[in-house]
Amino acid sequence: MHNDTIVALATPSGSGAIAVIRLSGLDAINIASKCFKSVSNKDLNKQATHTIHLGHIIDNSRTIDEVLVSVFKDPNSYTGENVVEISCHGSSYIQQEIIQLFLREGCRMASAGEFTLRAFLNGKLDLSQAEAVADLISSDNEASHQIAMQQMRGGFSSEIAKLREELLNFASLIELELDFAEEDVEFADRTQFRELIERINFVLKRLIDSFAVGNVIKNGIPVAIVGEPNVGKSTLLNALLNEDRAIVSEIAGTTRDTIEDEISIGGIGFRFIDTAGIRETEDVVESIGIKKTFEKIEQAQVVMFLVSSAQLAVDKEAIKTITIEIEKVKNKFPQKQLLVILNKIDQITDSELADIRTALQSKATQVIPISAKTGFGVEQLTNKLLDLINTGALRNNETIVTNSRHYDALLKAFEEVQKVKDGLATGLSGDLLAIDIRQALYHFGEITGEITNDDLLGNIFANFCIGK
Amino acid sequence: MHNDTIVALATPSGSGAIAVIRLSGLDAINIASKCFKSVSNKDLNKQATHTIHLGHIIDNSRTIDEVLVSVFKDPNSYTGENVVEISCHGSSYIQQEIIQLFLREGCRMASAGEFTLRAFLNGKLDLSQAEAVADLISSDNEASHQIAMQQMRGGFSSEIAKLREELLNFASLIELELDFAEEDVEFADRTQFRELIERINFVLKRLIDSFAVGNVIKNGIPVAIVGEPNVGKSTLLNALLNEDRAIVSEIAGTTRDTIEDEISIGGIGFRFIDTAGIRETEDVVESIGIKKTFEKIEQAQVVMFLVSSAQLAVDKEAIKTITIEIEKVKNKFPQKQLLVILNKIDQITDSELADIRTALQSKATQVIPISAKTGFGVEQLTNKLLDLINTGALRNNETIVTNSRHYDALLKAFEEVQKVKDGLATGLSGDLLAIDIRQALYHFGEITGEITNDDLLGNIFANFCIGK
Repeated sequence: MHNDTIVALATPSGSGAIAVIRLSGLDAINIASKCFKSVSNKDLNKQATHTIHLGHIIDNSRTIDEVLVSVFKDPNSYTGENVVEISCHGSSYIQQEIIQLFLREGCRMASAGEFTLRAFLNGKLDLSQAEAVADLISSDNEASHQIAMQQMRGGFSSEIAKLREELLNFASLIELELDFAEEDVEFADRTQFRELIERINFVLKRLIDSFAVGNVIKNGIPVAIVGEPNVGKSTLLNALLNEDRAIVSEIAGTTRDTIEDEISIGGIGFRFIDTAGIRETEDVVESIGIKKTFEKIEQAQVVMFLVSSAQLAVDKEAIKTITIEIEKVKNKFPQKQLLVILNKIDQITDSELADIRTALQSKATQVIPISAKTGFGVEQLTNKLLDLINTGALRNNETIVTNSRHYDALLKAFEEVQKVKDGLATGLSGDLLAIDIRQALYHFGEITGEITNDDLLGNIFANFCIGK
Repeated sequence: MHNDTIVALATPSGSGAIAVIRLSGLDAINIASKCFKSVSNKDLNKQATHTIHLGHIIDNSRTIDEVLVSVFKDPNSYTGENVVEISCHGSSYIQQEIIQLFLREGCRMASAGEFTLRAFLNGKLDLSQAEAVADLISSDNEASHQIAMQQMRGGFSSEIAKLREELLNFASLIELELDFAEEDVEFADRTQFRELIERINFVLKRLIDSFAVGNVIKNGIPVAIVGEPNVGKSTLLNALLNEDRAIVSEIAGTTRDTIEDEISIGGIGFRFIDTAGIRETEDVVESIGIKKTFEKIEQAQVVMFLVSSAQLAVDKEAIKTITIEIEKVKNKFPQKQLLVILNKIDQITDSELADIRTALQSKATQVIPISAKTGFGVEQLTNKLLDLINTGALRNNETIVTNSRHYDALLKAFEEVQKVKDGLATGLSGDLLAIDIRQALYHFGEITGEITNDDLLGNIFANFCIGK
C-alpha cells in the first residue's frame, strides 16, 4: 500500500445530480474521518469495509456539503488500498471545495490513471487488464465494449499467461540440461516441446491476425460515400444515421466539406465519410473537394459509389460517364472494397432498373439498388457492409487483440518462437535455444506486466483519465 | 413508497472514470438483483442497508460491466424508498446499456427532479429544503453555496415553521372564541397576539429585504467594464479573472462583442461584462458596439469606467473628452454605482497622476488608480467592489431569501399580517380576523410545502436535473 493518499474527482466534470470524489492510500479513511461528521456520530475509522455513511463534510466549522461516504478497506478495494468515495452534490464549486479540503488535510492530486496503476502495482489487475479499463471507458459500441470487457476479465491475459507458464517450464528443463551438459541428458522431451511450440505458434498467429479486425473495431470501420453531386449522398447518410447531421438539399455540390459520422451497425462502429464526389469541374472549390475525396477514399476500407438511377434512366450519356468514374476509382484503389449503390429507385420503373443494372454490372462490381428516401434496400446495404468485415472471431467470442502495444509484443514473441522452432528442427544446442526461449518469455511478460518499467507504465497510464 | 421504480443517470453525462445510475421505488433492490451477479454469490435482496457489493451487471448471459452496487433500504435513503446505486465504468455506451436493461426489467425513466420530489412526498425534506437541493447543485461560489446549504439544512424553513405554528395556535384560539361568540370570552390574549404579530412582521420584513441581496448573490453581481478602446479593459478583465479568456491586443477596438465572465471575489460571484466602449465613431460595427455597451450598462449594477492614465498624461484634450463621456454615463444611468479606474499608472509619474486625479475628481466620482498589467491597485479595486454590495446579512449568517417563489409567498403573507395587525388595532371581529390569519398561514405553508398542489410541484421540480 502506498503511504501517500491520492484524491481525484471520479465522475465527469461539470454539473450533475451527484459527483463522486475518490481517495486511495494508507491514510484515506483517516483523512476522510477528519473532515466528516456522521449524522449518527460514527467514527469512520471503526466502520466495516463496503459500508456507506451519511453525514457532512466539514471544514473547521463550515459545512461544505451533506454527503454519503463509502468505505473500502485494504485489500478489498479497487486499488487494493484503503479507499473512500465521497458522493456529494454535483456542483463544481462543492467538488472543488471538497478536493481542496482533502489536499489541505494531506492528500495529493492523483495523476491520470493513478488509481488503476495502484491496482496493477498491488496485484489487483495485470497490465493488459488495466489497459482494458481505459478501453472499456472509451468503448462506444457493442463490439469494442465486448472486446474490452473480455480483456478486462482476463480472457486475453490468462491465455498468454498459460502459454508463458508452459514455455517457462520447458525453459527451466532445458537450462537444467545445461548444468548436466557433459552427461548428455535430455530433461525436456523434445517431441512434447515441439508440440508446445506448434501450439504457441498457432495461438500467436491467431492473436496477431485478430489485430486487423480488433483495430478497426476499436476505431470504427471507415466507409467513404462517393458519387456525383445530387445523387443523394447526404440522404443516404441520414438514412444510415437515422438523424439529420448532414446538410440535405437539392443544390448540386452542397456538401463541400467532408463530414464524418459514426454509426453502430450490428454492434460494429462504422465511420461514414461523406465526400464531395469526383465530378470533373472548372470550379476551384469543387476541385479541392475532389482532391479531398481521393484522400478520404485512401483512408477508407470500403468505398460506396452512389449513383442516381433516376438520372441514369433519362440520360444514357450519364451511364457512360459513371462507368468511367467507377473504373477510375477501381483503378486508383484496387485494394478497396467497392460497392455501387443505385439510389432513387423509387423514381424509376423495374425495366429501367434492369437496364441500368446490366450496364453497370458489366463492370463486375457489386450493385445494390436502394431508395435512401423511402429506406428501401438500406437494410440490405447495412447487411452487406457487415459481410465485408470479418467479424467471425468476434461472433465466436474469440480473443481479439486491439492494443498496438500487445500487437508489437506478440509479433516479437512470434519472431522468437520461430527461432526456437527452427532451432529445434536444426538441433540447435540447448544454451542457444534457451536464449531464444527467454526472449519469447520476455515479450509474453511485457503484455501482462510481469516484465515492465516506469517508462512503459507512465506511457500506458498517461492515456487514462484522472480519477480512474 | 411509490410502486413504480424509477431509474436515471445521477452523474453528469459524458465519459469519466465512473458513472452512477440510481434506482428508487418498491422494486428497486429486486430489479437490481435480477441483473446483478455478485462475485461472492450474494443475493442483493438479503443485504443490509448502506452496504456495497462487487459484481457484474448481466443481461441474460452477456456481461455489461463490472460494478459496485450500493443498497439503501426504505426508509433510510435519499428518497425514503428502496434505493440502489450502480457505480459503473464511465462509458456512455455502458451507461445506456445498463439503463436500457433496467427499463426492460420494469423501471421507468425518472423525470427531472423526481428523486427529490419523492424525498419531499415521503417527508424526507420540506419543499424549501428540496428547492435548496437544486440551488446547491447550481451554486458556483461561496456565498450562493452558503445560502443554499443553510436553506437545505432547514434554517429558513424552521424559522418559518416556528412562526407558522405560533400563529396557528392563535388562529385556533380565535376560532374557538367564535364557537362561544354569545358568551363574549377571549381565549386568545390580545396583548400576546399583538406581540406575536409584531414579531412576525419584523421577521417577514427582514426576509423580504434579504431577497435583494439574495437575488444578486444567487445570480452574480453584474459589473460593466466601459472605456475607450485600448485603455486595457481586457487586461483588467484578465487580471480580475487571473486567466486569459478575453482577447488582449494592442489594436484599438479589438473587443467588439461583449464578453461576460464570472469571478468569485471574497466568496461573492461578480459577472464582469466587457464592452466595446462608447467612443464616437463612423464605423458601423463600432456604433453597434456602443449601442450594445449602453444595453449592457443598463443590466449592470456597477459600472467601471476605465481610462488610460498614460494616454491622459500626454493628451490634455483627451481628459476633456473623457470627462464628457463620464458625464454622459452618469447622466444616462444616475442610479448605477460608477467607479472611474485610472489604468496604466505604471507608465506615468506621480505628479502626472496627481494632475489627472484632480481633473477627474472634480466630477465628484470615485477614482481608483491601478495598473492592470502589474496588478497594482487591483486588490483595492476588488475590495471596493465588495464594499458596494451590502453583504452584512451574509456575514452575520442571517437567513437570506434567494427564491422568487418564497419571496412572493412572503410578500403575500406580509400583506395578510398587515391586515391582521390593522384588524387588531381597530378591534376587528374575531371571524374576520380569523380569515386574515388563515390567509397568512396559507402563504407560510406554501413555502414549506404544507400547502401545495401538483402544478406547483411540477413547476418546481421541472427545473431540477434528471437523476436528482
